[in-house]
Amino acid sequence: MSLETTVAAIRPADEAAMAAARERQARLTKPAGSLGALEELSVRLSGLAGRCPPPLPEPATVAVFAGDHGVHARNVSPWPQEVTAQMVANFVAGGAVVNAFARQNGAEVLVVDVGVAIQLHGGRNLLDANIRRGTRDMTAEPAMTAAETRQAVETGISVAHALADGGARCLLTGDMGIGNTTPAAALIAAFTGRPADEVTGRGTGIDDETYARKVSVIADALVRHHPDPADPLGVLAAVGGLEHAALAGFLLGAAERRIPVIIDGVIAASAALAAAALAPDAVAAMVAGHLSAEPGAAVALGHLGLTPLLDLGMRLGEGTGALLALPIVAAAVRVLHDVATFDSAGVSEK
Amino acid sequence: MSLETTVAAIRPADEAAMAAARERQARLTKPAGSLGALEELSVRLSGLAGRCPPPLPEPATVAVFAGDHGVHARNVSPWPQEVTAQMVANFVAGGAVVNAFARQNGAEVLVVDVGVAIQLHGGRNLLDANIRRGTRDMTAEPAMTAAETRQAVETGISVAHALADGGARCLLTGDMGIGNTTPAAALIAAFTGRPADEVTGRGTGIDDETYARKVSVIADALVRHHPDPADPLGVLAAVGGLEHAALAGFLLGAAERRIPVIIDGVIAASAALAAAALAPDAVAAMVAGHLSAEPGAAVALGHLGLTPLLDLGMRLGEGTGALLALPIVAAAVRVLHDVATFDSAGVSEK
Repeated sequence: MSLETTVAAIRPADEAAMAAARERQARLTKPAGSLGALEELSVRLSGLAGRCPPPLPEPATVAVFAGDHGVHARNVSPWPQEVTAQMVANFVAGGAVVNAFARQNGAEVLVVDVGVAIQLHGGRNLLDANIRRGTRDMTAEPAMTAAETRQAVETGISVAHALADGGARCLLTGDMGIGNTTPAAALIAAFTGRPADEVTGRGTGIDDETYARKVSVIADALVRHHPDPADPLGVLAAVGGLEHAALAGFLLGAAERRIPVIIDGVIAASAALAAAALAPDAVAAMVAGHLSAEPGAAVALGHLGLTPLLDLGMRLGEGTGALLALPIVAAAVRVLHDVATFDSAGVSEK
Repeated sequence: MSLETTVAAIRPADEAAMAAARERQARLTKPAGSLGALEELSVRLSGLAGRCPPPLPEPATVAVFAGDHGVHARNVSPWPQEVTAQMVANFVAGGAVVNAFARQNGAEVLVVDVGVAIQLHGGRNLLDANIRRGTRDMTAEPAMTAAETRQAVETGISVAHALADGGARCLLTGDMGIGNTTPAAALIAAFTGRPADEVTGRGTGIDDETYARKVSVIADALVRHHPDPADPLGVLAAVGGLEHAALAGFLLGAAERRIPVIIDGVIAASAALAAAALAPDAVAAMVAGHLSAEPGAAVALGHLGLTPLLDLGMRLGEGTGALLALPIVAAAVRVLHDVATFDSAGVSEK
């Protein structure tokens, strides 16, 4: 799938379908506005689908893009790099939190290796799309070449298309990669212009010394590469990661197919900035699942104009926050399908 | 079921089970603390069940307690009183938002008429437990007699017991009653000592003139009755409603059976203050589903020390906010059941 074809196919939300959803919400047996954020969400999803009601977001699949990071050598994480591959094995075996949440909410899990440093053993739900065994150290050189970056983005597009072709009516972002909050923070700084210390968090939990080093690593990389937000692929190549680039493509592929895609945490939010820079109308397909405790997540979602559905202090990644939001997205759509109107139910109005 | 027997049977959370849950959370394949509010929720539910892991909260039933209010005559709501009965018919027919959300999340809906002004026609999921065809006007006299109040509380206890006996492993509060945010605000003011204008909201959506009248009606009722928070049944009788009293009993019955009960909005939160005043340890069974847009909800939950899981700007009632929180509660418990440990999955620690 070429990136250019996908970007050219992404269209704005359908205003007529959004107007129909607003009009329908006003006739349903509930006080106007009483469903709060779910009403606007139902309007957005109607605009994406181009009809009211839009399809229920079922079945759903969370695609967990996994990769490793050369910048890990700069001691930005206390976890050894092999944990990426070990956690992928855990996902394939069904033992991680993403698996538990997917079972609870009726979603499938697909793991996509785009950049894990270690050769993985196969599994039913593991797609080998490895582009490179980990990125380069962004403090020394660009993390990826232009060709690797494009390949990662187009892999993400292809995964979204394949899931849509397989019947998925909702996509969810997931990620795994020890050290991947460092490129995420760098991407958010590059696309929003905010300084490194405002968008950098403690990831899986780091001490003050590691945190200070992480901020300076990100600041150094930004000074070295001067990434230009008008060149989104260049930004991804300089300071991104393979899973970040693939997630950007995944979001674009969902938008092209007009399927809602629930953004998980700070990794996906950083990828969403790249996707929106490539195709601004892609934001119409994005639903912010939750507010990660990582400070960069709020900055990125604010830049995109997205309000997260949940705020539970989570910072796990894997797609866990997106999965918790899935039933809320489904409920918002189901209201337009199932709920009686004042007329049909014989309920008096005020 | 006697209220005294239930209150005497309510015990504190089991500290050993809570410690076991904290210890288990630390060994699961995720960074410590990365599931945010879900970790503490899993600890609380372990303490309630007295074991780790606690049972999954399935199957679940939302009990929608319905009643009318004499204070409706004081023009505190723009909706005609017959809408209570019309909406109950809508619930029984499956056409309301509570039905849509229950279908989405695999819960049952039981409607309990404790005080609807109009004789209702039966239905498979409608329980006729009518105590009085609407309360009295609290601005002129106590809303209920002591006997009516006790009967309503004990009806709520019986409903919780019957659902538990039928296999429910999670209960959710629901309510329907035109005008019922007025007694809810009065109860919250009485139990927390906050002034009427701090705990009164616009309910289903009222204009400035109606809002000012609603605040003064509540303030007048509080001056008239001087409800004493040390006498919870007296407070309910003076300024409560039949569904509020029944919900207080429902919460106590769940706590007695050590089943989690998800609190919906401001009506249930006001009832929870009464339940906690009767049996402080009952709070261990309560999960705050969402933060209603009604200002009294935050005051009541804060008084109880409960943090809501969701904040979506909703103010519909019916049990809708509790139903949206149900999958999150289930996910929090499922983590303790399903997720591998670092040892079992062969994942390195930091």
